[in-house]
Amino acid sequence: MGLKKAGVLGATGSVGQRFILLLAEHPDFEIHALGASSRSAGKPYASAVTWKQTDLLPESAKSIPVSECTPEAFAGCDIVFSGLDSDYAGQIEKDFVGAGFAVVSNAKNYRREVDVPLIVPIVNPEHLSVVEEKVKKSKAEGKKEGFLICISNCSTAGLVAPLKPLVEAFGPIDLLTATTLQAISGAGFSPGVSGIDVLDNIVPYIGGEEDKMEWETKKILGGTNKEGTEFVPLADDVLKVSAQCNRVAVSDGHTECISLKFANRPAPSVEQVKQCLRDYVCDAYKLGCHSAPKQTIHVLEEQDRPQPRLDRNRDAGYGVSVGRVREDPVLDFKMVVLSHNTIIGAAGAGILIAEILKAKNVI
Amino acid sequence: MGLKKAGVLGATGSVGQRFILLLAEHPDFEIHALGASSRSAGKPYASAVTWKQTDLLPESAKSIPVSECTPEAFAGCDIVFSGLDSDYAGQIEKDFVGAGFAVVSNAKNYRREVDVPLIVPIVNPEHLSVVEEKVKKSKAEGKKEGFLICISNCSTAGLVAPLKPLVEAFGPIDLLTATTLQAISGAGFSPGVSGIDVLDNIVPYIGGEEDKMEWETKKILGGTNKEGTEFVPLADDVLKVSAQCNRVAVSDGHTECISLKFANRPAPSVEQVKQCLRDYVCDAYKLGCHSAPKQTIHVLEEQDRPQPRLDRNRDAGYGVSVGRVREDPVLDFKMVVLSHNTIIGAAGAGILIAEILKAKNVI
Amino acid sequence: MGLKKAGVLGATGSVGQRFILLLAEHPDFEIHALGASSRSAGKPYASAVTWKQTDLLPESAKSIPVSECTPEAFAGCDIVFSGLDSDYAGQIEKDFVGAGFAVVSNAKNYRREVDVPLIVPIVNPEHLSVVEEKVKKSKAEGKKEGFLICISNCSTAGLVAPLKPLVEAFGPIDLLTATTLQAISGAGFSPGVSGIDVLDNIVPYIGGEEDKMEWETKKILGGTNKEGTEFVPLADDVLKVSAQCNRVAVSDGHTECISLKFANRPAPSVEQVKQCLRDYVCDAYKLGCHSAPKQTIHVLEEQDRPQPRLDRNRDAGYGVSVGRVREDPVLDFKMVVLSHNTIIGAAGAGILIAEILKAKNVI
Amino acid sequence: MGLKKAGVLGATGSVGQRFILLLAEHPDFEIHALGASSRSAGKPYASAVTWKQTDLLPESAKSIPVSECTPEAFAGCDIVFSGLDSDYAGQIEKDFVGAGFAVVSNAKNYRREVDVPLIVPIVNPEHLSVVEEKVKKSKAEGKKEGFLICISNCSTAGLVAPLKPLVEAFGPIDLLTATTLQAISGAGFSPGVSGIDVLDNIVPYIGGEEDKMEWETKKILGGTNKEGTEFVPLADDVLKVSAQCNRVAVSDGHTECISLKFANRPAPSVEQVKQCLRDYVCDAYKLGCHSAPKQTIHVLEEQDRPQPRLDRNRDAGYGVSVGRVREDPVLDFKMVVLSHNTIIGAAGAGILIAEILKAKNVI
Repeated sequence: MGLKKAGVLGATGSVGQRFILLLAEHPDFEIHALGASSRSAGKPYASAVTWKQTDLLPESAKSIPVSECTPEAFAGCDIVFSGLDSDYAGQIEKDFVGAGFAVVSNAKNYRREVDVPLIVPIVNPEHLSVVEEKVKKSKAEGKKEGFLICISNCSTAGLVAPLKPLVEAFGPIDLLTATTLQAISGAGFSPGVSGIDVLDNIVPYIGGEEDKMEWETKKILGGTNKEGTEFVPLADDVLKVSAQCNRVAVSDGHTECISLKFANRPAPSVEQVKQCLRDYVCDAYKLGCHSAPKQTIHVLEEQDRPQPRLDRNRDAGYGVSVGRVREDPVLDFKMVVLSHNTIIGAAGAGILIAEILKAKNVI
Repeated sequence: MGLKKAGVLGATGSVGQRFILLLAEHPDFEIHALGASSRSAGKPYASAVTWKQTDLLPESAKSIPVSECTPEAFAGCDIVFSGLDSDYAGQIEKDFVGAGFAVVSNAKNYRREVDVPLIVPIVNPEHLSVVEEKVKKSKAEGKKEGFLICISNCSTAGLVAPLKPLVEAFGPIDLLTATTLQAISGAGFSPGVSGIDVLDNIVPYIGGEEDKMEWETKKILGGTNKEGTEFVPLADDVLKVSAQCNRVAVSDGHTECISLKFANRPAPSVEQVKQCLRDYVCDAYKLGCHSAPKQTIHVLEEQDRPQPRLDRNRDAGYGVSVGRVREDPVLDFKMVVLSHNTIIGAAGAGILIAEILKAKNVI
Repeated sequence: MGLKKAGVLGATGSVGQRFILLLAEHPDFEIHALGASSRSAGKPYASAVTWKQTDLLPESAKSIPVSECTPEAFAGCDIVFSGLDSDYAGQIEKDFVGAGFAVVSNAKNYRREVDVPLIVPIVNPEHLSVVEEKVKKSKAEGKKEGFLICISNCSTAGLVAPLKPLVEAFGPIDLLTATTLQAISGAGFSPGVSGIDVLDNIVPYIGGEEDKMEWETKKILGGTNKEGTEFVPLADDVLKVSAQCNRVAVSDGHTECISLKFANRPAPSVEQVKQCLRDYVCDAYKLGCHSAPKQTIHVLEEQDRPQPRLDRNRDAGYGVSVGRVREDPVLDFKMVVLSHNTIIGAAGAGILIAEILKAKNVI
Repeated sequence: MGLKKAGVLGATGSVGQRFILLLAEHPDFEIHALGASSRSAGKPYASAVTWKQTDLLPESAKSIPVSECTPEAFAGCDIVFSGLDSDYAGQIEKDFVGAGFAVVSNAKNYRREVDVPLIVPIVNPEHLSVVEEKVKKSKAEGKKEGFLICISNCSTAGLVAPLKPLVEAFGPIDLLTATTLQAISGAGFSPGVSGIDVLDNIVPYIGGEEDKMEWETKKILGGTNKEGTEFVPLADDVLKVSAQCNRVAVSDGHTECISLKFANRPAPSVEQVKQCLRDYVCDAYKLGCHSAPKQTIHVLEEQDRPQPRLDRNRDAGYGVSVGRVREDPVLDFKMVVLSHNTIIGAAGAGILIAEILKAKNVI
């Protein structure tokens, strides 16, 4: 059994630092390789990184040497997490997959590929089947085939969490709107969001974000072709999604004011919706994954919750909070969803995906 | 002609202070009476108030004696502005109207009365006709009849500003959603919003606010009965409005992410919508009112605007900014609206209403 | 052995909530009684409190009934923690001590009493001797004498932490200046600091705070009379302290820019000062107290540290961070000190004091 | 007489934008040339700049073509304001002075040159005499000699403002400490201060700032050699200055908690200090300069003032506010000083310096 050997691409960046924090004391993984730019290569991690996390740089990671992001340098890794910027992720991740690695990436580059699973681990781990099949087949042939799994966009993760159980219980949602109030940690920190942009201010725009939310939601809630080899997102006339994204002065935690309409009549009651959300147990938890939230969705009854400062850390950031579930005069229901953007919306999702892969013997 | 004598009820409160700032150098009005609680009565204003504005307390207001909020103490006033808390506004405003005063109130108490105009001065000054008729009639009878005009809720003001010209140009809107990111100044400052609630946080709830937005919009965009004596809000099946309100760490300026659908097909184009908003000239400006915005609606083309810190003060806070006008996959259009909550959404609106009343010889 | 029974006075307030969080999973204590105003008395704690902590209200505390703050209701408690407002603390704490309870209080009322220890548990636990003697004597007489121990002011706690080892190593400090940048959590939350006061703002004044820092420092660094029965603060001409206190937009963590001059010449070197701070091990740690910091003072070498968001939680908030130790052109040295105001500066200090009392068999 | 022709170097940067705002409606100056990097050269200003000011980009500046920063492109300018980064200012400013231009620079490069005036215009305009003499002499010789004047560091400006009248009235200050809480606008905005650094945080370090404050204060309060050709800063043993600088979540306005000791005994009383500050009228005001503050120093009596949000704009940002003047147990007095860092501490100072030069016929 033992620990799986993990590598981190883009280890000195914002997402990379989160991967390292989560891996440092993880019962399933040990850090085996750290990759960054050639500027950092050769240095011990503690010298290469400008550490900006509220938790201290783990002792165990300090002296790990940073290498360049080449497959050779990651030899022996069972799983490779990529926190690379999209400028670099395209080629490097391709190289790693080509060299037979299992790669879980936070970059946006390959999310829309028809054969790449786009995963929110508390929502659609069944999409991993596309990869499982390939791996099983290649193993049977005595080969080690590489594969790529993409983590969803951070605001998409929070949005789809409550949708999954609702669709399972009450049938398709056909109209969906979401206005986000997004934390600044999602933008990294070099330079990230400028202080003057969020002090006594909000910025009603995040480049590419609305399109990501509108598109990714359809893939995550969608299915596969008959052969189970390609993903088929929900068609635009089956599910219409409209997103409006804002950057606000919050460090961690994306708040989303969402409204939705079910395709089927009559729609469920408010109480049915809340009960359905409360009862949802994600597959990762059933599989016994270490980081899986005990309570996937926390339904809050206080009228002024969820709030990022108070609720973002439920289930160590892997649980999603939903509050103010109520009828909507325009669609069927409106509610407020809060999710931790760097945990379930980024690095943390990557870790939980890897835990699922391990539980399923894919890695 | 000369200056109209103005009184301010609730003069030491947050809204009252704004009235005094706006009146202090106003070309049409002079402060004649200031009313507050019995605790403050008898003191010069400078001693009675805890001044919390970024502009200095005007010299001219410092020594004005504060009286109790009784009609007797306001004798001689041509117009009375009320910044009273709703706990007190009910009885006091009734007394003033009964005593023959023209009252413009920021309180919520009488907004839903069938014969009380609910006015956003850059939107529906034509609703003042209900009062004009009464005043004309009573003048003809040699009497001085009191009347009340209500200022709308602050977030309603920003919402309806772009709707008015759109409805005039393209016919009724039948579906409307708005998610707000509201400034803390709207909550006053004793104690107002707690620091811990807005530091690294947002509060996804403002008591009563969503209901106000959903209801007031229908009255403001609605009409009157045939006799022109009572207001008839739009019916719930003619216009459906859904609001979600959030408090954020912004001092002044409410940002609203709105979506709307026109009843008529085909809907206009994005460019037609923007042109319509740009072309709108509010009646108050045509009447030559001092505070009326030269440009009622500023249509911004930069993709990340409007922003509260940068855009809230356009036309001294009487102009509304609209940005990111684009097609909406669920309704017809989505856009971001920014308005200055204490100017066009509160005290400033009261002043402009009074300017309109003066221009129309109602006061 | 077993668990000591703990009571909390003022259990629904800001400090009281912190006591409950810290007690809920404590290996030495169990919550035995919770006291609040008569308005809350009789309710289970979960109903009586408006919980505002980032950690969830502990399950174990939810159903504990809240009583009034009377000695009868706290019968059986081995230790009583007081988070009472100073308006109420005076009489209630007196009653509890009179009834034979061991009381550890966060209120300011009795801090300057000559026979009441004023304790920063990582700094001057030896001051507890005044109480130990009394307790020992009364035990010998078969009586149970009550006593009171005061927690210091929050900004005082951070200030004296590095001073203690420096004075021990290099002799008396005779000049000391401190300018604070204090978090808002110190002011509680009903209403606490107003949002408008800390948004794009600082308030260069905190009522009574500068006097507390200047006075309490002299008692904490001072000694006792020969009999060991009364405290003798350092005289004003032995140690001169000057404090300037500011409230800033930080949730937790007080930052203090301090300068100091030693009485003895030659003064130590910067490196000697840093080494002395690094080497300091507080007595509470030597006693094996559960909450005592492993590293009492963290000396940071990065030029831009400590920072509240990044460093306030070192050693669970019981460790103090010191950075930028350098020579001062006016006094001898300047440095930046960061301490967690609600942990080592308030409720957390109370818990650690109780751990020390238990370790010393005083309770 | 007519308008003086002004050029702006670094016109698209943060400081440059402020110069343009202040020049756009100035009664003494008109914008004649705007210089930026070669990337911007050739474009109209509105296209070259990413405008980030709360006031709109002035219409009159929009179409002015941006040129490169060469003396040729600025031909005809009576005065050149430099908002250049220090990376570029060194060579470019030298070239401009060499070409005979009058340059007022916000860069730090030449502040310590013995023959370059370092000016806070409300404090030491008499230091301009060193340049006046040179210009007079060269004019007499029929030449046009260029010269450079440096604007002080922003936090230095606030510090020295109250010191000047105090030293004039009560003799030398020999000990001075200042802890600053500095606004983020001073750091520009590309990228400027990162949002994550000032959200629920303070950064107790600003590169080079403490040294600037400690050094520049001595030059500004110092004199010249007998010939009046070189500046002689106060010696280190005559005035000792210690600064501690912090970055806080404030947009505009530096707050400084200062303490000072006079060399002469007995020291004045608190009331004498306050009266002295109130009575101070800066020379620029006596000269009738357009931007000179009517009240140079506002002495506030409210115990919790000055505050940046409420007080930074006094006298359009050219007035400095001083509050909480009180005795200091370590030195003689402590007080809180607030100054607007982009007005009296940067671009605004440059404009007022130019007004003084014009009033004295130096330009």
